[in-house]
Amino acid sequence: MTIKIGILGYGNLGRGVESSIRQNPDMELVGVFTRRNPEDVKLITADAKAYHIDEAIKMKDEIDVMILCGGSATDLPVQTPEYAKFFNVVDSFDTHAGIPKHFDKVDASSQNSGKISIIAVGWDPGMFSLNRVYANSILTEGKDYTFWGKGVSQGHSDAIRRVAGVKDGKQYTIPVESALESVRQGNNPEFTTREKHLRECFVVADEGADKGKIENEIKNMPNYFADYDTVVHFITEEELKRDHSGIPHGGFVIRSGRTGINKENMQIIEYSLNLDSNPEFTASVLTAYARAAYRLNKEGQKGCKTVFDIPVSYLSQESNEELRRKYL
Amino acid sequence: MTIKIGILGYGNLGRGVESSIRQNPDMELVGVFTRRNPEDVKLITADAKAYHIDEAIKMKDEIDVMILCGGSATDLPVQTPEYAKFFNVVDSFDTHAGIPKHFDKVDASSQNSGKISIIAVGWDPGMFSLNRVYANSILTEGKDYTFWGKGVSQGHSDAIRRVAGVKDGKQYTIPVESALESVRQGNNPEFTTREKHLRECFVVADEGADKGKIENEIKNMPNYFADYDTVVHFITEEELKRDHSGIPHGGFVIRSGRTGINKENMQIIEYSLNLDSNPEFTASVLTAYARAAYRLNKEGQKGCKTVFDIPVSYLSQESNEELRRKYL
Repeated sequence: MTIKIGILGYGNLGRGVESSIRQNPDMELVGVFTRRNPEDVKLITADAKAYHIDEAIKMKDEIDVMILCGGSATDLPVQTPEYAKFFNVVDSFDTHAGIPKHFDKVDASSQNSGKISIIAVGWDPGMFSLNRVYANSILTEGKDYTFWGKGVSQGHSDAIRRVAGVKDGKQYTIPVESALESVRQGNNPEFTTREKHLRECFVVADEGADKGKIENEIKNMPNYFADYDTVVHFITEEELKRDHSGIPHGGFVIRSGRTGINKENMQIIEYSLNLDSNPEFTASVLTAYARAAYRLNKEGQKGCKTVFDIPVSYLSQESNEELRRKYL
Repeated sequence: MTIKIGILGYGNLGRGVESSIRQNPDMELVGVFTRRNPEDVKLITADAKAYHIDEAIKMKDEIDVMILCGGSATDLPVQTPEYAKFFNVVDSFDTHAGIPKHFDKVDASSQNSGKISIIAVGWDPGMFSLNRVYANSILTEGKDYTFWGKGVSQGHSDAIRRVAGVKDGKQYTIPVESALESVRQGNNPEFTTREKHLRECFVVADEGADKGKIENEIKNMPNYFADYDTVVHFITEEELKRDHSGIPHGGFVIRSGRTGINKENMQIIEYSLNLDSNPEFTASVLTAYARAAYRLNKEGQKGCKTVFDIPVSYLSQESNEELRRKYL
């Protein structure tokens, strides 16, 4: 008895989920649902099929969990509450400020359908959030830090590409090593934006474009770059393709807190990720939580959950006895 | 309505729990239970009382959770199954190989009493175990590494003190930095014991003792030191007291795994602790899980649990709404 998975949306994240399912022998990909013409969509999984998104609801009895792989800006705010009426669903909704409202809407659908939904699954929100709550529950008096990177920021890469004279470009967010070290020493520093992260840009300029002007425009772009120390490198199209086509990311969640009758002891908890592929890692977290959604629903539970509500044992293929024996 | 806590056993760990309760405003220390003469036990908490351990069971209706702070060798194997007949209990049982049997005995008591017990709570077992299961559930194909330290090993310090001519001593376990780096690079190295950890000893010799002989005996001690690179420093009693009276510890749990259709992407998850006080950190984890034990029992649950069975939201003082809003 495998867990039958549907994937809704087939971009980087959807393909990552497909790949992750192949690493989870208790799961099976039933179908991929897309807005494109399904005939044009080539899956990697031999025995799965691509369908038009309009076919999804008809297949509600053939799919145990639908993993929603659309974007947080316009797709998920509509799709998750909608598909939660018919399926157990998992999404990676990542607009932090919008989570309470998204939760309420999705919960209403899932309570009604008697299904489970799990939202905001991934690494931030997701594993980073989880680690923040563990660390805050243990060290009740302390300070939280999050650093992102080294990794590609899609938004900042897009911003570079909108500059006149830029043909293509990629931006890396990089944590400032000395800032990280200061946090790890337990100094409880306060940082300005500039002190925490650097921005490094790799830019392909149009032929004959004024590179000085491009560099200046990038470095002074409000919101995106003006508050940071930014480094701009001009490279060729070939170099961009050869050296910067990956989607790495990661980061650090650190809590430093004090314990002891006189708060005399510093305690530091650190969680970090170093990811060659941001979407594939997010996809792997989604897949693990799809297993949890399936199990919770089998137990008769319903409604919207987050990573905070689910014991880790629900994510694992191994039995509770095995987990205790092997990992405790 | 505060959660009423009892502490059974008042060594470093018990005092750490007392201190931790003062950092958790929803909790209240009712009493400390000790084998010593309670008149000789001085508590820090003004309105709590020390009792003889024989008084504990009589107070079962005044205590919501009893935190068991005895040792794993002889105390907890007897105490946890016994007190689980009367109380919700939390312990830090840390004999990895003995956990399945301990679980079964404690579970039988708690199923019978209708109470909750949570065993093997702390950092290893505990937070390290939890992170191993999260990481294995996400990166299903990969390799696990645990490094301990820099920290004081009680067992190794005791072993030094048993060497003839040694007056006092302290041993630090130290992870080999280059080994850690190799793991972080995703090299999936295989290590010998010697390649992962160093052992550094600070020894106070008896007057006139043969230091060369002591050093040689320590370095060649089977099980404890022979398989490691060991450094021995001879210092004065004053220096030992001044520079080595803390109980720091910590370590690193790292999983490296590959994702992607052709396993082309390396993903690294790392969790680490850097602790000035090992017992106070363990105590802080115990306190957070005492909150979970209280809540689970209020919901009508019973039986033995581990960190794998409990959602993080049960550890936090904050409501689920607050957690989603602040940390997700």
